[in-house]
Amino acid sequence: MTVTTTKNITTLATYTWPQGFYSDGLNAGLREGKKDMGWLYSEVPAAAAGVYTTNQFQAAPTKLTKQTIEATHHLQAMIMNSANANSCTGVQGAQNAALMQAWTAQKLGIAPELVGVASTGIIGEQLPMGVIEAGLDHLQLTKNDAVTTAILTTDLHPKTISIQFELDGQTVTMSGFAKGSGMIHPNMATMLGFVTTDAQITGDQLQKLLSQEVDETFNQITVDGDTSTNDMVVVLANGMANNQTLTPDQEDYDTFVAAFHQVLSFLAQSIAQDGEGASKLVETDVIGALNHDEAQMVAKAIVGSNLVKAAIFGEDPNWGRLMGAIGQTDAHVDVDHVSIWFNGLLIVKNSQAALFDAAEMKASLGESVVKIKVDLNSGEGTGQAWGCDLTYQYVKINAAYHS
Amino acid sequence: MTVTTTKNITTLATYTWPQGFYSDGLNAGLREGKKDMGWLYSEVPAAAAGVYTTNQFQAAPTKLTKQTIEATHHLQAMIMNSANANSCTGVQGAQNAALMQAWTAQKLGIAPELVGVASTGIIGEQLPMGVIEAGLDHLQLTKNDAVTTAILTTDLHPKTISIQFELDGQTVTMSGFAKGSGMIHPNMATMLGFVTTDAQITGDQLQKLLSQEVDETFNQITVDGDTSTNDMVVVLANGMANNQTLTPDQEDYDTFVAAFHQVLSFLAQSIAQDGEGASKLVETDVIGALNHDEAQMVAKAIVGSNLVKAAIFGEDPNWGRLMGAIGQTDAHVDVDHVSIWFNGLLIVKNSQAALFDAAEMKASLGESVVKIKVDLNSGEGTGQAWGCDLTYQYVKINAAYHS
Repeated sequence: MTVTTTKNITTLATYTWPQGFYSDGLNAGLREGKKDMGWLYSEVPAAAAGVYTTNQFQAAPTKLTKQTIEATHHLQAMIMNSANANSCTGVQGAQNAALMQAWTAQKLGIAPELVGVASTGIIGEQLPMGVIEAGLDHLQLTKNDAVTTAILTTDLHPKTISIQFELDGQTVTMSGFAKGSGMIHPNMATMLGFVTTDAQITGDQLQKLLSQEVDETFNQITVDGDTSTNDMVVVLANGMANNQTLTPDQEDYDTFVAAFHQVLSFLAQSIAQDGEGASKLVETDVIGALNHDEAQMVAKAIVGSNLVKAAIFGEDPNWGRLMGAIGQTDAHVDVDHVSIWFNGLLIVKNSQAALFDAAEMKASLGESVVKIKVDLNSGEGTGQAWGCDLTYQYVKINAAYHS
Repeated sequence: MTVTTTKNITTLATYTWPQGFYSDGLNAGLREGKKDMGWLYSEVPAAAAGVYTTNQFQAAPTKLTKQTIEATHHLQAMIMNSANANSCTGVQGAQNAALMQAWTAQKLGIAPELVGVASTGIIGEQLPMGVIEAGLDHLQLTKNDAVTTAILTTDLHPKTISIQFELDGQTVTMSGFAKGSGMIHPNMATMLGFVTTDAQITGDQLQKLLSQEVDETFNQITVDGDTSTNDMVVVLANGMANNQTLTPDQEDYDTFVAAFHQVLSFLAQSIAQDGEGASKLVETDVIGALNHDEAQMVAKAIVGSNLVKAAIFGEDPNWGRLMGAIGQTDAHVDVDHVSIWFNGLLIVKNSQAALFDAAEMKASLGESVVKIKVDLNSGEGTGQAWGCDLTYQYVKINAAYHS
């Protein structure tokens, strides 16, 4: 993975909740043998920002959380479950999401307007509210990381990161966790991601920053081109680090932006790497595009192509398929002067085959990360995207998993 | 398959060349053990029309054929090869395509401007022109159908159809053949298809009709979402049936349009059914869309979704994934009142689960054709699209086949 770090940001060895945040996760009985419910809580209301699926069938919890955050840009808690998405569940589904919100607020002694709700799992079945109620009854306020596994579905492992940095002389912690791993595609329509920090920043500023950073991270990953009805990224900043409220004109603002980018970038790439059935992470760098947007578009087209993904699974330096994927975009392309590199080895020069060492190439494509670089020779724009290979395992998981 | 026939159109039991058309196919040595080269020839210059890949990297033969047809809308011959696409081959590739055209013209004693060229196969390698020349030397003018297999790549079987109907009291024959079967996706970017007929019609009229019919047939199939650099559909009408030159105001014009639609529709659906690794044909009918275009868009989004395709391979009535695929389009959707049927069995009503007989549904999804019907409840628009399931075999073929 290519996650930028700066010398002022320290990655912590273990998942660490920022000051004032508590959490828990458990098996409520929505599925067998795995944790399926969890929550987050902040001692004080936190500035909150969110981005949500662009799918027209937005699930009940997603709609509710969006409305809740947009009202005041503050949250104090999030309640979450896996195994059931509460999506395509009509009026009863909306009532159930509201009940989850109300019950959580009641147990924590806070206003319902400060509680977000997130669900993931099977579409079209009503939540068993008795199970939810019993599960909620057992959730505690702890510093454990059980919630990071409670939200998983077909993911192989949790995706978590904790970092620390200084703002205004104060130590700030920022921690993120996410789930994938199918239906991972554009426009924030794709997964659950949660970031907590004790930094002090307004909800408006946080929202602006989130929308901007998500375009460069979560919106540039794809597993299978499908978007889901449920997914969201929510950020909570409770201000308990006591730094001066962050504004763009402050010297330390860039540190916060870099830290935020690192967390989102790490989570996004972790989701791509743990895509359903994936055996390799694919990272695409496009240079020489007319502008940034076109570079992003081409990068994403490459990691989204089934033919490219299958070739990478086969460890086959099949550059013709990359040309196909590039050529089917609307981006400006100097069609006679495109260059392509696999893991730094030149394979296409002037849109034709370049000479390369087949053994060296073969060994290189055997790595668990495949980096593709493309020069469109049409300008100065650069962009990146991340995906994974298409494997037998992807088909197996999705032929069998009723979502 | 759902191919409309009318009582005035007879489907012939064997592939039959229309009057005045000759052909041949053979193994020239571009690959081992399979025919790889062939041609078509008409006794007289034929009105010609074509549609071509929209991929920005258009292969040399595709460019050449497009230019040739657009110059006068007439062709008298087509030369074709598989195993090598002559794509991403630079100046030398363009020269080689022009050589194929010139050599074919010379052998047939006609002008090069009356010869089209089509290639399919591996991208980025120069054509072995000695092999092409020797192959051309052995091609004969026969009535065999060897060319219909000579153009195949990963296709499991040839796709051919011959029909007859009357125009103006004259018997007219129309025959089509095509190849798939990966890189099958939108906008005519996807395969080779050839239709010959002895009907009399102008090149302009034929072009207009082809562009219109392709939108309803070839452009509504998808195998894997990828478009190729080489593909085209070319139609030749040599007029030897001696009907009065067809114009839209003639009584028999509708018969010709119906026949043409039947041939293109059959070939398109055959390509979807023989998609790489496919075990099932998927046909989607969308009704209740705001308009025809939106219905087509939604139908194609459904057959293009990897998650839907994998579910159909698994014979799983996973309607949540259909909702996902519908919702990620921009089409107008009455999000609380969508209905969905699998093979005529209602599974979604008012955007929520409907009651259905699980055993009956399971048996139905075991069929080799799965028909999905969706009512968006937003207007009167209808549309159709065709695809196939996503199988282990697709991954296997594309992890191994270096194209």
